[in-house]
Amino acid sequence: MSTYTAVTAPTQFVEANGIRFAYRRWGKRSGLPLVFNHHLNGNLDNWDPAVFDSLAKEREVIIFNNAGVASSTGEVPTTVAGMAENAEAFIDALGLTPIDLLGFSMGGMVAQQITLDRPELIRKLIGTAPRGFDAGNGQGHITPETAAIFAATHNPPENLWLKGFFTDSTKSQEAGRAYLKRYLSRTENRDAPVKDKVAPAQIAAIGQWGTVKGERFAYLKNIKQPALVVSGNHDVIIYPVNALHLVRNMPNAKLIVYPDANHGSWYENYEDSVFETNRFLNSE
Amino acid sequence: MSTYTAVTAPTQFVEANGIRFAYRRWGKRSGLPLVFNHHLNGNLDNWDPAVFDSLAKEREVIIFNNAGVASSTGEVPTTVAGMAENAEAFIDALGLTPIDLLGFSMGGMVAQQITLDRPELIRKLIGTAPRGFDAGNGQGHITPETAAIFAATHNPPENLWLKGFFTDSTKSQEAGRAYLKRYLSRTENRDAPVKDKVAPAQIAAIGQWGTVKGERFAYLKNIKQPALVVSGNHDVIIYPVNALHLVRNMPNAKLIVYPDANHGSWYENYEDSVFETNRFLNSE
Repeated sequence: MSTYTAVTAPTQFVEANGIRFAYRRWGKRSGLPLVFNHHLNGNLDNWDPAVFDSLAKEREVIIFNNAGVASSTGEVPTTVAGMAENAEAFIDALGLTPIDLLGFSMGGMVAQQITLDRPELIRKLIGTAPRGFDAGNGQGHITPETAAIFAATHNPPENLWLKGFFTDSTKSQEAGRAYLKRYLSRTENRDAPVKDKVAPAQIAAIGQWGTVKGERFAYLKNIKQPALVVSGNHDVIIYPVNALHLVRNMPNAKLIVYPDANHGSWYENYEDSVFETNRFLNSE
Repeated sequence: MSTYTAVTAPTQFVEANGIRFAYRRWGKRSGLPLVFNHHLNGNLDNWDPAVFDSLAKEREVIIFNNAGVASSTGEVPTTVAGMAENAEAFIDALGLTPIDLLGFSMGGMVAQQITLDRPELIRKLIGTAPRGFDAGNGQGHITPETAAIFAATHNPPENLWLKGFFTDSTKSQEAGRAYLKRYLSRTENRDAPVKDKVAPAQIAAIGQWGTVKGERFAYLKNIKQPALVVSGNHDVIIYPVNALHLVRNMPNAKLIVYPDANHGSWYENYEDSVFETNRFLNSE
């Protein structure tokens, strides 16, 4: 068992599909590794260390930058399918099979696509955001709240996550500041920042994923893996009704919705969400 | 600690508000008792013994027939407010304060009303079905599926619950038959059957509860207690979107939705739902 933590795990690199993928890998080598797919504009540093340091006691966790993001080379695809293909190349390059897969926000879309592409590779899935999801007024399948949060100036810049991941309540904002402190707690060997050209490509991919072809949500019946969906009751980035769409259309998905919680509900409730994640992954 | 089980707990009686209430009370006398409010056409026997026999290891459980139901005297009120008033008289007659409160289906409506009437009496709430809930085509706020299930002939009669509480999948129907077996396992001192005149009054009360006056769901902000909401992803009696309405409008409510599950999701998943219930009630 490695003694690394989210703050000390070294950044490693592996080459596949012509891309040099940056990743970190640590935790107890027991059972299946859990591979994480990241959200819009996320790099290796802004996952929540609190989540990992609890999860890593029971399993190996693997985070990576997909193609074109931060310290990984290559171009950001403008489709979720393209992102999934690159993620699969990364997973294959590490020789992992089978794995458990977690996707957060845009990463949840990628995780679903990986599961559809390679069902034999994925044992269990934790994810978000169905294809054809509800996004309010249809602004390219980014909610009006997302557009406003990303258009605003935040000082310091990381305060963007206070608005996007937490509600306006005193309690939630306090949890948000605690998250920011954790996310900034890695001082050495931080990841490269995410370049400005990344978000537009990722937003294009999200928009394409949001577009329904054929029967809405029909594809979800093909995700037969046990799945866990987590949402905040006031998620303004991916409205919680989408979590309900997921579990109504996937054959075997359990849903948990947290109170007074926005898009970062699992960070805000990390003790409970890690407990539920371990319970879900450890069940027969 | 009593050694009774769901199958052996004696039926007792207490008088209040001019009504002789039938009830059963057993389990570990530790912490707060958990009082259960029943669904349409339910009596003391058709709660799931498996749920109680696990819950009763950690806490006292109390089930009762509200006024006019089965072995309780009096008339069934045609409003949820009237049912709540009677339930409060029952709770007061036993001298219970404070308590945890669970309501299933119509009982969830009653439980919400009790919590609004007597906030100091209720520590935590487990429940369902907001006022003004979505019921599809608006047939008096009974869903079309509910109407069809109650209108059909079931042979034996208890097979009604196979349709109302479980999905059509092989796995769920199997769980349903196991539930029926448990619910019929009490052979001595069974409760009186529910008379035919009960359901019409209860349906009138549900219809009145379903009618929105003023801003929809606004009343839920006044239920400040920690709450747990449980639903099935294919609940045809109370559509799962109503569970989302609850947790989006209550200040402090967590939601769990089970896969391949109908209105009896917490019976079908009794091991998990009892685990979650205990965890919720035991948390600080």
